[in-house]
Amino acid sequence: MHARVHITLKPGVLDPQGEAVRHALGAIGFNGVNGVRQGKVIDLDLHGIEPAKAEEEVRQMCEKLLANTVIENYTVEIL
Amino acid sequence: MHARVHITLKPGVLDPQGEAVRHALGAIGFNGVNGVRQGKVIDLDLHGIEPAKAEEEVRQMCEKLLANTVIENYTVEIL
Repeated sequence: MHARVHITLKPGVLDPQGEAVRHALGAIGFNGVNGVRQGKVIDLDLHGIEPAKAEEEVRQMCEKLLANTVIENYTVEIL
Repeated sequence: MHARVHITLKPGVLDPQGEAVRHALGAIGFNGVNGVRQGKVIDLDLHGIEPAKAEEEVRQMCEKLLANTVIENYTVEIL
């Protein structure tokens, strides 16, 4: 069983990395970019977890380790 | 107009960051994790680009800057 987690900065939280990417894109001629927000995508290969409990288990992984819930949002998809 | 880019390591490319996350998850009691692969998700806020050309433009951004196409795959979604 697989799960995909998206971790992105909460709206309003500054994204210096995204800003740097935006400037770099502009420097090589891509001027149609208003904003860039960069986050993480984490693909988990799970075993021995009942499908019904998998989402909650992965949420717990996010709450305890994968996401900094002060500044980050996360979404969980069981694939 | 918005686009979402996923950048992930190609299969077979070692992911030390993913391995570190897997070990950390195990250390706090999540033992049902066979593997972890970590990548980037980049949300782009685009302007002044015709929708029909947007996907190709974002592909060019990936080819030239956002992705290291030697070891990374990328996907582009126009939202």
